[in-house]
Amino acid sequence: MSATDRPTYPVDKRNRVKRRHERGFYDHDTVHRLLDAAALCHVSYVVDGQPYCTPTLFWREGTRLYWHGSSASRMLRSLKAGQPACLTVTHLDSLVLARCGFNHSADYRSVMAFGHACLVSDPEEKRQALVMMVDRFFPARTAELRASTAQEIKATSVVTMEIERASAKIRAKGVADEDGDYALPIYAERLPIRTVIGEPEPCSRLPAGVERPSGLAGYRAGRRLEEALSEAYARTYVR
Amino acid sequence: MSATDRPTYPVDKRNRVKRRHERGFYDHDTVHRLLDAAALCHVSYVVDGQPYCTPTLFWREGTRLYWHGSSASRMLRSLKAGQPACLTVTHLDSLVLARCGFNHSADYRSVMAFGHACLVSDPEEKRQALVMMVDRFFPARTAELRASTAQEIKATSVVTMEIERASAKIRAKGVADEDGDYALPIYAERLPIRTVIGEPEPCSRLPAGVERPSGLAGYRAGRRLEEALSEAYARTYVR
Repeated sequence: MSATDRPTYPVDKRNRVKRRHERGFYDHDTVHRLLDAAALCHVSYVVDGQPYCTPTLFWREGTRLYWHGSSASRMLRSLKAGQPACLTVTHLDSLVLARCGFNHSADYRSVMAFGHACLVSDPEEKRQALVMMVDRFFPARTAELRASTAQEIKATSVVTMEIERASAKIRAKGVADEDGDYALPIYAERLPIRTVIGEPEPCSRLPAGVERPSGLAGYRAGRRLEEALSEAYARTYVR
Repeated sequence: MSATDRPTYPVDKRNRVKRRHERGFYDHDTVHRLLDAAALCHVSYVVDGQPYCTPTLFWREGTRLYWHGSSASRMLRSLKAGQPACLTVTHLDSLVLARCGFNHSADYRSVMAFGHACLVSDPEEKRQALVMMVDRFFPARTAELRASTAQEIKATSVVTMEIERASAKIRAKGVADEDGDYALPIYAERLPIRTVIGEPEPCSRLPAGVERPSGLAGYRAGRRLEEALSEAYARTYVR
């Protein structure tokens, strides 16, 4: 595929992958797939010149990102006015043990998304976002839940950011030593890393007869979390 | 233990845990254990008012953090002068499915560390850092490797940041619904998440007779990555 036959985020000095530029991708498909395979992101923003890096759960809708938190949090108060932010997702795939220190590395897939974050203030957009905050991870679950109270809705703030620039960076080559080093009597390996789901732990206070909904079947022990998240995303949103 | 009988990072408005403050910890032991159980962090810094959130491998030495990258990278060029930065580590432990949208959550353990990041320019400190960059993860491995060339050392920059403020935030309570909601016929569960090591993949170009060093035995398939990293850390550094 060429870069011209599919939608791509604009590239400028803020998001161009400078180091190892062959690892950089800007097309929507690559960027979105890596985002949709994750639940956890880290968001950077600035308050009084101090950068903050905050972990949070997030999701994507088209070219918009959403995340949430308490109205009391530092991050949300600073974002009310529409602040520059950077949301990053990283999938760590391996640690790489090479034959020299310099070539020790890691395989990873990451996305950095840039834009201006602002609070969702429109009541209908917020109502819909609070549904997707659950249903993006657990499709159609909100319909099964006790409805949110006005106080709960008030206590939850939703932040949104249109992706203005984005880059994906992928390293997936395992051991990559200098040609002359392969003959050395030094052990080298790729150590795969994966994030997986454990055995689901039903709440100990479930009333008799309440069974696990079939819609959660994708979240099963031993499966990669990113597979379950990508599958759930595809059930909730048409790409 | 009280907060007074062990070293603690100072607390001010930058690192005080505002939301759910009962989840906040500032003592060295809690902060350091969470840092030392991780290889991957996200570092936030500011260039021309734009926040960046960059994933990187890192390690701790006392109350200093170290991370590295190419001298060509955007992050490192911006940090030469000693820039305010925030380094964050997050361990995602579960997704929590509650009986209402508001109580959907996640168990996690995270650290935000604040300070001023600067390049390591002293040659001896840099040489030692390049050793620990490998040995912190794989104890005593550098002694088994092909020695670094002057060009490799020059091409690798090391950044260090004294931790001036830090906070750990821990949620570990699984399903926590409103009292009145437990009787509802709604399924709720804690879905455990763990990051594990896969089957090590020896380099396909190993010369005959080169075996996996016994020092890597802690990195075995199925083990939690954080256990192996914490163990390796303890072997390399005395706490």
